[in-house]
Amino acid sequence: MKVRRSDRLIDMTRYLLERPHRLVSLTFFSERYGSAKSSISEDLTILKRTLKSRGTGLLETVPGAAGGARFIPYIPEKEATQFVDGVIESLSEADRFLPGGYVYMSDLLGRPNVLRQVGRLIATQYLADQVDTVLTVATKGIPIAQSISDYLNVPFVIARHDSQITEGSTVSVNYVSGSSSRIEKMALSKRSLAPDSRVLIVDDFMKGGGTVGGMQSLVKEFDAKVAGVAVFAEGSFAGERRVPNYTSLLKIHATNDHVEVTPGNFAEQIYTPERLAQFVD
Amino acid sequence: MKVRRSDRLIDMTRYLLERPHRLVSLTFFSERYGSAKSSISEDLTILKRTLKSRGTGLLETVPGAAGGARFIPYIPEKEATQFVDGVIESLSEADRFLPGGYVYMSDLLGRPNVLRQVGRLIATQYLADQVDTVLTVATKGIPIAQSISDYLNVPFVIARHDSQITEGSTVSVNYVSGSSSRIEKMALSKRSLAPDSRVLIVDDFMKGGGTVGGMQSLVKEFDAKVAGVAVFAEGSFAGERRVPNYTSLLKIHATNDHVEVTPGNFAEQIYTPERLAQFVD
Repeated sequence: MKVRRSDRLIDMTRYLLERPHRLVSLTFFSERYGSAKSSISEDLTILKRTLKSRGTGLLETVPGAAGGARFIPYIPEKEATQFVDGVIESLSEADRFLPGGYVYMSDLLGRPNVLRQVGRLIATQYLADQVDTVLTVATKGIPIAQSISDYLNVPFVIARHDSQITEGSTVSVNYVSGSSSRIEKMALSKRSLAPDSRVLIVDDFMKGGGTVGGMQSLVKEFDAKVAGVAVFAEGSFAGERRVPNYTSLLKIHATNDHVEVTPGNFAEQIYTPERLAQFVD
Repeated sequence: MKVRRSDRLIDMTRYLLERPHRLVSLTFFSERYGSAKSSISEDLTILKRTLKSRGTGLLETVPGAAGGARFIPYIPEKEATQFVDGVIESLSEADRFLPGGYVYMSDLLGRPNVLRQVGRLIATQYLADQVDTVLTVATKGIPIAQSISDYLNVPFVIARHDSQITEGSTVSVNYVSGSSSRIEKMALSKRSLAPDSRVLIVDDFMKGGGTVGGMQSLVKEFDAKVAGVAVFAEGSFAGERRVPNYTSLLKIHATNDHVEVTPGNFAEQIYTPERLAQFVD
């Protein structure tokens, strides 16, 4: 049965958006809609133009009979900055300050609209780089890791402080928690990371970088490679960080009676001229 | 600037899909595209037809000048059954059996395509019922809770066994773990649940129902209401369950040397004649 262009465009948008970073073939769409490949090619041209002009993402089209299209989500710098400014405004409400210079932010990291934007933002940094797996450590990094995994369309895995029977055999590392200088342990199921795979390390908060350093050691134990480090918020830290290169959305400066939240380093990390050239006309 | 119908349909699809269960007004779309409300109404009719015929979801249209459209995602029964059958096939691989009759399933619950389908499936049960918040307990229920929260477009909150300083004041309950008969404790930030709100309780695995019972007690402590209980897998249990009514995707029967995985009760829980009447012609 032949399908009208308007119906095809709606269904193709939905289909491609649900499968970011995956090549969907012309043949697949042509059979799905009973339409000629030339019509599908025209549809993809329209899709590409609209997705780009609305700042939704890039539609990479691979030409030829064996070709197809791949949707690469991103978030334009202006929208990213507005989003981070909005988060800062929420976090600056006085009733969020907790004893000891902490800020209550668990509610934000449970809101689907916030998590979607965090995922899109970090996925923007890896729009052209290969990431095979997202790694985080329980508990609070999980929602961020899951959202990034959703936009990169790759699995995420969770290291734990307590290794559980349901994880099977695990690999564990010891690391020094940066802020408290305690020795801690984290374990990851042996089945989690493939050798030589590229791993994106993610957490909700980084101070001295001890926990992120622990995850870097884990990646090494699996003979895998660190593709990058991304955190929702970095805290102010006097000493030298164990993690030289990372992306943060927020910076939190806390004293005992005052907390200041400012934008992290995401703009200079993500919106480099080389990367911008890929998705701006 | 006026926008062509094809461009509008692509952008509207994307916009509505990212905001499930939320009413988007005709006025908003009309201003966004510089188009007459009558044209937008026609667009919505096309969208409604395509989303329904492809089994993507329901587009509820609210008539009149103050009206608009609301996208309600669902998954048709056939697609749900195929998805669960696929999960059962994966889980039945021999190398997943762990000592003590456990099954390794952490990898599945870290795959974005699996989590999306789990979220759509459970959201289908609540397509016409109000849910204000999704509640789970750390750690393994989190990815499922997040995906359901994404499709229902409501926040999720996480109870924890160890209460942390970053949660602020908490409410805690003691409960009896069904399988081990130990007394355990879980705590939830005081800011998490509003009085009288409707809470969907979610976990990855339920055996005796002790943990889910603990979450029910928490909901009561907040003067909120349980909207339902959903688990990824239920284990076989000899005694009487503390949770009379729940939805499960899988049933896992485990002995020391053999594990059998079969479909849970989702078909009879979700695909009732009343609910089917809402989304099938």
